[in-house]
Amino acid sequence: MTNTQLTHVQIDNYGPWTVTPEPRREVDLQTLQSRLYADLAQFFGNRGGYTFFTRFDNMIAVSNGSSMEDHATLQESIRNRYPVTMSLSVATGQTPAGALATATEQLQDAGSAQDKSRREILRGRHIDDEFRTDEDLRIAHFDVNDATGKYTDQLSEFDTFIRIEQGYASLMKYMRQAYDSLSFFVGGDNIIAVCPEMDAAAYQDAIDHVRADVGVELKVGVGEGRRADEAGMAAKHALEECRATGADVELDC
Amino acid sequence: MTNTQLTHVQIDNYGPWTVTPEPRREVDLQTLQSRLYADLAQFFGNRGGYTFFTRFDNMIAVSNGSSMEDHATLQESIRNRYPVTMSLSVATGQTPAGALATATEQLQDAGSAQDKSRREILRGRHIDDEFRTDEDLRIAHFDVNDATGKYTDQLSEFDTFIRIEQGYASLMKYMRQAYDSLSFFVGGDNIIAVCPEMDAAAYQDAIDHVRADVGVELKVGVGEGRRADEAGMAAKHALEECRATGADVELDC
Amino acid sequence: MTNTQLTHVQIDNYGPWTVTPEPRREVDLQTLQSRLYADLAQFFGNRGGYTFFTRFDNMIAVSNGSSMEDHATLQESIRNRYPVTMSLSVATGQTPAGALATATEQLQDAGSAQDKSRREILRGRHIDDEFRTDEDLRIAHFDVNDATGKYTDQLSEFDTFIRIEQGYASLMKYMRQAYDSLSFFVGGDNIIAVCPEMDAAAYQDAIDHVRADVGVELKVGVGEGRRADEAGMAAKHALEECRATGADVELDC
Amino acid sequence: MTNTQLTHVQIDNYGPWTVTPEPRREVDLQTLQSRLYADLAQFFGNRGGYTFFTRFDNMIAVSNGSSMEDHATLQESIRNRYPVTMSLSVATGQTPAGALATATEQLQDAGSAQDKSRREILRGRHIDDEFRTDEDLRIAHFDVNDATGKYTDQLSEFDTFIRIEQGYASLMKYMRQAYDSLSFFVGGDNIIAVCPEMDAAAYQDAIDHVRADVGVELKVGVGEGRRADEAGMAAKHALEECRATGADVELDC
Repeated sequence: MTNTQLTHVQIDNYGPWTVTPEPRREVDLQTLQSRLYADLAQFFGNRGGYTFFTRFDNMIAVSNGSSMEDHATLQESIRNRYPVTMSLSVATGQTPAGALATATEQLQDAGSAQDKSRREILRGRHIDDEFRTDEDLRIAHFDVNDATGKYTDQLSEFDTFIRIEQGYASLMKYMRQAYDSLSFFVGGDNIIAVCPEMDAAAYQDAIDHVRADVGVELKVGVGEGRRADEAGMAAKHALEECRATGADVELDC
Repeated sequence: MTNTQLTHVQIDNYGPWTVTPEPRREVDLQTLQSRLYADLAQFFGNRGGYTFFTRFDNMIAVSNGSSMEDHATLQESIRNRYPVTMSLSVATGQTPAGALATATEQLQDAGSAQDKSRREILRGRHIDDEFRTDEDLRIAHFDVNDATGKYTDQLSEFDTFIRIEQGYASLMKYMRQAYDSLSFFVGGDNIIAVCPEMDAAAYQDAIDHVRADVGVELKVGVGEGRRADEAGMAAKHALEECRATGADVELDC
Repeated sequence: MTNTQLTHVQIDNYGPWTVTPEPRREVDLQTLQSRLYADLAQFFGNRGGYTFFTRFDNMIAVSNGSSMEDHATLQESIRNRYPVTMSLSVATGQTPAGALATATEQLQDAGSAQDKSRREILRGRHIDDEFRTDEDLRIAHFDVNDATGKYTDQLSEFDTFIRIEQGYASLMKYMRQAYDSLSFFVGGDNIIAVCPEMDAAAYQDAIDHVRADVGVELKVGVGEGRRADEAGMAAKHALEECRATGADVELDC
Repeated sequence: MTNTQLTHVQIDNYGPWTVTPEPRREVDLQTLQSRLYADLAQFFGNRGGYTFFTRFDNMIAVSNGSSMEDHATLQESIRNRYPVTMSLSVATGQTPAGALATATEQLQDAGSAQDKSRREILRGRHIDDEFRTDEDLRIAHFDVNDATGKYTDQLSEFDTFIRIEQGYASLMKYMRQAYDSLSFFVGGDNIIAVCPEMDAAAYQDAIDHVRADVGVELKVGVGEGRRADEAGMAAKHALEECRATGADVELDC
């Protein structure tokens, strides 16, 4: 059974800050957001975790391997280097969607995302080392079949992007509703999903759904591990196996 | 009449690089991509331009104000600081979609995105200063009505993200097909669109489409300018006006 | 005659900030400082300028090509992305030391570096385009003769560093006192100096002084240009010429 | 007794790379170097370590808390994100100077810093957790007495820098020769030294030496810890104590 530890990262009162005293230059906001994301990616990544940019003002990290003390250090480090602060809420659950729901609730209990006096909330619990196992995480790595040949080298870049985006919008919604999984676009034609235990038929079902819904053809490799990077690397290798064999789904777990 | 200058940025042969000699750590790819994006945002931003991360391996910049010589400098700077190189194709047009189509075609003519020997292509022409006007760019800044109150403070972060994402997927496709506009998610509940001349009714139509299609309620401010940052800042102020008055659409042009 | 435009960059009230409410983590300060420096280097560099980290809380830029409006944009961009603000003072002069003295005085006139209420000072004037010439800047690029063979591959890294550091300390003081030049260590065994017009004998004198003072053997290439990067690149080529011919001094101006 | 673990970081074949096929733009080199340093600072810092930029192409980290496996991860991460690779050599010793000497020798044994075929060397051993103690590290934090009042607010910034630089050059050489300590300038008027066990009289002696040698007046706080950040933070608090009491030397160990 999976045991996913998720961190809901929320920049404190960010929306109002971006327009106070008047709207800030968009280029600076974009730079701030993408560098903040890169820093989180490295911080959690240094402990085997994965971070997804999601909406940038709210980000989601698979944080198995990071303690509450680590989270406190991160919070302090961001405060020391950025003009904004961030709240962090940590929760675990048998499904990723369940874990995140708990994490978000803990944060909402502390006040609104745009509450001026709610700053640097740190809530929740990490999984103690003694309870961590090599089956805690399941990561699925999807990509689009022959995206370069069918889209990138044929269509205008925006029209390619429309295909990728419609495929992602369809998959991320379906995986959430049917399988309590959280799926994130990670660039190119790649989507990484954090999943509970699912069999090959379930992944095939998701791929079929997207094909029927928006006409985008996906394949997927799935891996398992104690840490996100271990599960994710196994998923990448499984995806390479799909490429070699032409299979739609390859599970390495 | 608008005169949008767009740059199609493409990392050379990136997909194969990410899995050679074997798959690279995802956290490093994410960090590389987001920092590369931040650097482009600052580079074009220093000249008044806007850059959108799009798929990260392919990015789109509104580059009015950046010459071909500037583009060559950028290409050299990236080569000097990253393990990858990038191709740049510049084109103009009366609609953003038309300009980008030309830019992408120029790049495709030079070879496949995954051609190992196609590196650092630099094609196209910038708009000479004498032909630039204060009406060259139209930027629209959309956001979701009361996203914090209705979503962020109520739902699990992923469920909030689903709403935002479905809204974006609907808008970006419709704006492209109906109005030759290019719309980009820029974080939070914000979408920035690069548009040709459109009247208030057209923007209202797009908002109505998204509400009918996926139930997400948007509002929009629109600005005009010689540079993307000028048009974009006017759009932000127009959006603030929407917030103050409750209007769906506010044009400052 | 040279016409160097220098910008004195000073983080506002930085010392007190680093220990308020109690001392901040050193690693965050180091990260903040080095990234702030990188951003300045790119900003001025995008306009042909050079930036030197000097003391990090006070930095010096050769800013020919950057207008006061550019400086204001930089100030705003830093405020938007960092937890600190910066003051900028711009001055020109026939010697680099003279220009910097003026720039610093303008800043000191506005208040102490540790005055809590003195923030984001922006003073001085840039050189108007019509007065800029191809002889405005002289840049000298020094390095240590066979540093790898004599030091890096032979001594403990710290003992190598002592040699390089003593060489730099000697050169930077002498060049300032004898020739009104500003010399900056830029990594490895490299020192870049911003100079007024000096002939080959003057450079030879500086090299002789350092050899006699601390036993470190330098060579130097010197270039000229309208912008720092042009003069600096010419200096690098001249230094390559020294490497090829064994000369101590090579002037390309 | 201290047990300092030091890592000698060396960019592979960097000098030749910077001029191949011809000299690279200085601004890009400066940006590359300072960001690479920031990444190392964060990486080691996430494990309690300190990193010093030293010469940028060669850097020194106090790496107690980072295993050889961590070092391998760092090496891979840099290779994935930068156009250069780095070699890492780890050693311990009762004095910092002794530890570094060993680390450098291990690297020199593997080939020259400018050997084209010597890449990504990883040598040495970390201290096993069971042998780590709360007295492993001694960190001293020096600063200049009233640097703002005496220098920054009075002199041209370069003339201030000359004072700070002469003070540093004097201290770093003396501390190495008399006490096997490694001292690093960290910005502003601050110098951080990694030391063996030294009593207050030894620190006073170093301060006296610098005053006599170059007329710069220092004070110092010293801390102890299992990790560099613990010892360093204790040193910062001790230095605050000096500020409060007017003492030259304050030991918290």
